[in-house]
Amino acid sequence: MTSQHPANEWARIPPAPADSGRVVSCDLVFGVDEPADIAFQIAVARSGRIHAERLDVTTDARPLPRPTELAGPHGGRLHLLRAPRGTLSVSYRAELVSPEAEQPEGRANSAGGQLTMEQLTFLRPSRYCPSDHVVGLAVAEFGRLPAGRARVEAITDWIHHRVAYVVGSSAVHDSAEDTLLTGQGVCRDFAHLGITLCRALEVPARFAAVYAPGLDPMDFHAVFEAWIDGGWRTYDATRKVPRSSLVRIATGRDAADAAFADVLGGFANLQAIEVTATVTGNLPVDDHSADVHLY
Amino acid sequence: MTSQHPANEWARIPPAPADSGRVVSCDLVFGVDEPADIAFQIAVARSGRIHAERLDVTTDARPLPRPTELAGPHGGRLHLLRAPRGTLSVSYRAELVSPEAEQPEGRANSAGGQLTMEQLTFLRPSRYCPSDHVVGLAVAEFGRLPAGRARVEAITDWIHHRVAYVVGSSAVHDSAEDTLLTGQGVCRDFAHLGITLCRALEVPARFAAVYAPGLDPMDFHAVFEAWIDGGWRTYDATRKVPRSSLVRIATGRDAADAAFADVLGGFANLQAIEVTATVTGNLPVDDHSADVHLY
Amino acid sequence: MTSQHPANEWARIPPAPADSGRVVSCDLVFGVDEPADIAFQIAVARSGRIHAERLDVTTDARPLPRPTELAGPHGGRLHLLRAPRGTLSVSYRAELVSPEAEQPEGRANSAGGQLTMEQLTFLRPSRYCPSDHVVGLAVAEFGRLPAGRARVEAITDWIHHRVAYVVGSSAVHDSAEDTLLTGQGVCRDFAHLGITLCRALEVPARFAAVYAPGLDPMDFHAVFEAWIDGGWRTYDATRKVPRSSLVRIATGRDAADAAFADVLGGFANLQAIEVTATVTGNLPVDDHSADVHLY
Amino acid sequence: MTSQHPANEWARIPPAPADSGRVVSCDLVFGVDEPADIAFQIAVARSGRIHAERLDVTTDARPLPRPTELAGPHGGRLHLLRAPRGTLSVSYRAELVSPEAEQPEGRANSAGGQLTMEQLTFLRPSRYCPSDHVVGLAVAEFGRLPAGRARVEAITDWIHHRVAYVVGSSAVHDSAEDTLLTGQGVCRDFAHLGITLCRALEVPARFAAVYAPGLDPMDFHAVFEAWIDGGWRTYDATRKVPRSSLVRIATGRDAADAAFADVLGGFANLQAIEVTATVTGNLPVDDHSADVHLY
Repeated sequence: MTSQHPANEWARIPPAPADSGRVVSCDLVFGVDEPADIAFQIAVARSGRIHAERLDVTTDARPLPRPTELAGPHGGRLHLLRAPRGTLSVSYRAELVSPEAEQPEGRANSAGGQLTMEQLTFLRPSRYCPSDHVVGLAVAEFGRLPAGRARVEAITDWIHHRVAYVVGSSAVHDSAEDTLLTGQGVCRDFAHLGITLCRALEVPARFAAVYAPGLDPMDFHAVFEAWIDGGWRTYDATRKVPRSSLVRIATGRDAADAAFADVLGGFANLQAIEVTATVTGNLPVDDHSADVHLY
Repeated sequence: MTSQHPANEWARIPPAPADSGRVVSCDLVFGVDEPADIAFQIAVARSGRIHAERLDVTTDARPLPRPTELAGPHGGRLHLLRAPRGTLSVSYRAELVSPEAEQPEGRANSAGGQLTMEQLTFLRPSRYCPSDHVVGLAVAEFGRLPAGRARVEAITDWIHHRVAYVVGSSAVHDSAEDTLLTGQGVCRDFAHLGITLCRALEVPARFAAVYAPGLDPMDFHAVFEAWIDGGWRTYDATRKVPRSSLVRIATGRDAADAAFADVLGGFANLQAIEVTATVTGNLPVDDHSADVHLY
Repeated sequence: MTSQHPANEWARIPPAPADSGRVVSCDLVFGVDEPADIAFQIAVARSGRIHAERLDVTTDARPLPRPTELAGPHGGRLHLLRAPRGTLSVSYRAELVSPEAEQPEGRANSAGGQLTMEQLTFLRPSRYCPSDHVVGLAVAEFGRLPAGRARVEAITDWIHHRVAYVVGSSAVHDSAEDTLLTGQGVCRDFAHLGITLCRALEVPARFAAVYAPGLDPMDFHAVFEAWIDGGWRTYDATRKVPRSSLVRIATGRDAADAAFADVLGGFANLQAIEVTATVTGNLPVDDHSADVHLY
Repeated sequence: MTSQHPANEWARIPPAPADSGRVVSCDLVFGVDEPADIAFQIAVARSGRIHAERLDVTTDARPLPRPTELAGPHGGRLHLLRAPRGTLSVSYRAELVSPEAEQPEGRANSAGGQLTMEQLTFLRPSRYCPSDHVVGLAVAEFGRLPAGRARVEAITDWIHHRVAYVVGSSAVHDSAEDTLLTGQGVCRDFAHLGITLCRALEVPARFAAVYAPGLDPMDFHAVFEAWIDGGWRTYDATRKVPRSSLVRIATGRDAADAAFADVLGGFANLQAIEVTATVTGNLPVDDHSADVHLY
């Protein structure tokens, strides 16, 4: 009753070394009223850190649908599934080894300082990050600070102190402007506002959906990355979890690129969701000023 | 070829005493493609200061349309005219005596401190002043300042220093949110932003269209009034003219209530506009901190 | 423990004649964390129909706050109350006789066809009814229909068939544009969209908060009124209740003018609300095409 | 005084065969007040059709800046230039042979019908195409039409008949919602609205900046492409030029990805722009119903 995907099998692989790894999982149940394509972004982004992973799909109908894996930007992977009518359960679980073994993205191609196409793209306004519309406010508030790390840290700090984290305060259509004006939001809104202010000040910035060990209540989490000194540095204006324990899922211009499930055609409603994310040993401490690169 | 309105005639009245008065005028020309009702708000608000005034209407057609005067709030007067096809010219001119002879509105009814229906109305969000949507930002920015005059002065100061006065920078549909985010606007935008921030902090605030001696280039002007300590005080975040020389035309929730001409039914295009506003003697000096009540 | 307001007392007045009246009530409970002024709009608008009414206020503190009644537009009444810290209960109940005894507003002043200041005001865009921004769509969709009643009926019909009534689908900051684009809303959104499209086509339109016998689930309700042929006619694109049994509470440009409770200063949270509205005998039937004037 | 880029030189190459080609050019002059990076998207997208092309840069300063070419999506090329203070002139000219020699993009990878990452990306809302917010209206208006070509043609037709092409009617921050509501716009707005309605109905759609022989007045032009039956078909709701003569420059989610010049860092103002686009022989005729694939 279970299709395993991808091929590498969870059970056969020896456990990762203690005190270094992460275990993340996600269980979703959909009620499918009309057959639908569902695009999942729940698997962790490709990297040398993946020790083992497993994607299980369960449905009422036969044959079981097999997910197709599509490669997204920055290691992201999207799993596309044709869901038949009935109940659909999708479970993902991954075990990751310590990040020390790998170089963060961006370090290598930083030589020269010339903007790349990717960085230019992440300077542009997007659906929930209308940076072109907030240049005036961004410059008035942060324009006098020295460019670079200090300015992005000031932005993150400002958001942290001025925006209240209020569950249920924002709607799915809200943009960073709503967050800025109403002073309320959840993690995706905090990330959108950080991205928007960065781009308005000509700092490339992008959205990352992550597993976040330590998050309470546990759920998917979102942070933003800014391009500084030749690397993508991770910022989280919510300051709810240590950044160094985050595990990247999807990366994009904003939340529109990183939904954990997009239902296309047909009708399917999310009926249950459970996310877990743990770290072996103690959670690291985040002093909010250190550089963190998201794996 | 000229219908005079209202009855009191400009020419017969002796000139106002020197060094005390204001003379304001407005000449509008419309090309009327289809007969239209046009609602003008170009006459100065009723007060004891009006020494003489004259409204002239010229059209290609006969009989000449006679404007109907409708009483608006706060002394405002709206002149409604049925414009026939062709060219329509409307000229208004008023001479006002010194304001020293009159008590400003609001002083009388300030006793008790109980909110009135009018003040409650001017606490509510309006088309271009969506104060309900910016409470978070307003409180974060100004919430720690003592309520009352100091806070409204801080708001006005903040707008003055953060918003650039750029001719043509804003569009007719823009609200105070656009001004706040883009950091650009013209007088109506400055007024809308002031009103919006005041209301978000529970200070009743309203929009006033005015004649503004000293404005360069000369045009209609807009300011805002905030209810403080039992009176309506005048604020102008553009700081382009002395507030004490302003002459009130229309008052309302925002620019939607104070358009100098609204074309209803039919089609008429404004082809020319000329506004003048002068003060006898020297323009007063405005130190931007004194209390000013708009007459 | 109860302050009665206004003076006329419920108990002493004989019951209204059978099969003709309405009984409406509203019970609100607030938790007041910091003393606040609360502006209530829960009393029915003044008219000859009020047979008896009673407003009761209960608090933990002494002395009991006495509400001040402020007269609003179109017979509306606003009750302003200084709520002390603690629990505040406000109960309103009114009994109304049959409307047959009274002429609807607007009939009298319809002679001549000249626009009044009131009608001009209700042509203007407002916070949740940005009619200036939807002229293109309104004209494209309804511009070819004959002006007057047929056009407003077409607008109401169009909204009824295109917008889904979905509880919880809209947020407090949403305007008629959101309703138009998302195709979802609740009663206030339906009313806002009707008002917006009417004004965009130069039909004066206003918002009315009402008690609505027959509404299921029972709650406050909102409809809109359009000025046609010299009178304010009532429209309800939700078609959830017969219009002829509605009882007017507050009237204004949009929901910003008609909130059942506005908390000013301090902090108070609504903890419970119960609304009732009944009609003696059977609910009337509404064929959605008859003219209805709201009392 | 001229740096040629890329290496192939205009003058040495024999003219393209008659009656088959296109010649396009673009001359831009900037006043550079502070040294700036400028990202140009004025070169035609890579294809076998480019017979010859030339990019000339002229500045007051020495040494001449050399543009770096960055590869964008769908053959697009972005030229990044460090502009020194002074006057900067950039001239581009390309000669293209007949398109008959090449297969349009998308034909090859249409087998199977499975959505690709690219198509999923172009289903997502973007800055000026907030498709997630207009699902209700899109479904109400077009939901009953059969999916596929007929529906996209109905969308294009609807936009053509309901939106007026008015130069200067839209602002740089406007989205497709503004176009839909105000009923006015220019080519980019028409394209944004088409994209938005397509995506809301789950048809992948993207923005293309093009050279447009026959456009009057001549300027850069914008159209949209929808993914239908395994290929990207070109739609132009303005119907101002034949689609088959268009020449692709840049492709993206919306205009944010296709600006002809983005100034980054520093300050530079566009002082002059001249665009030309001609076709050898007569302009083709477009009956607006034929399938057109943009090269």
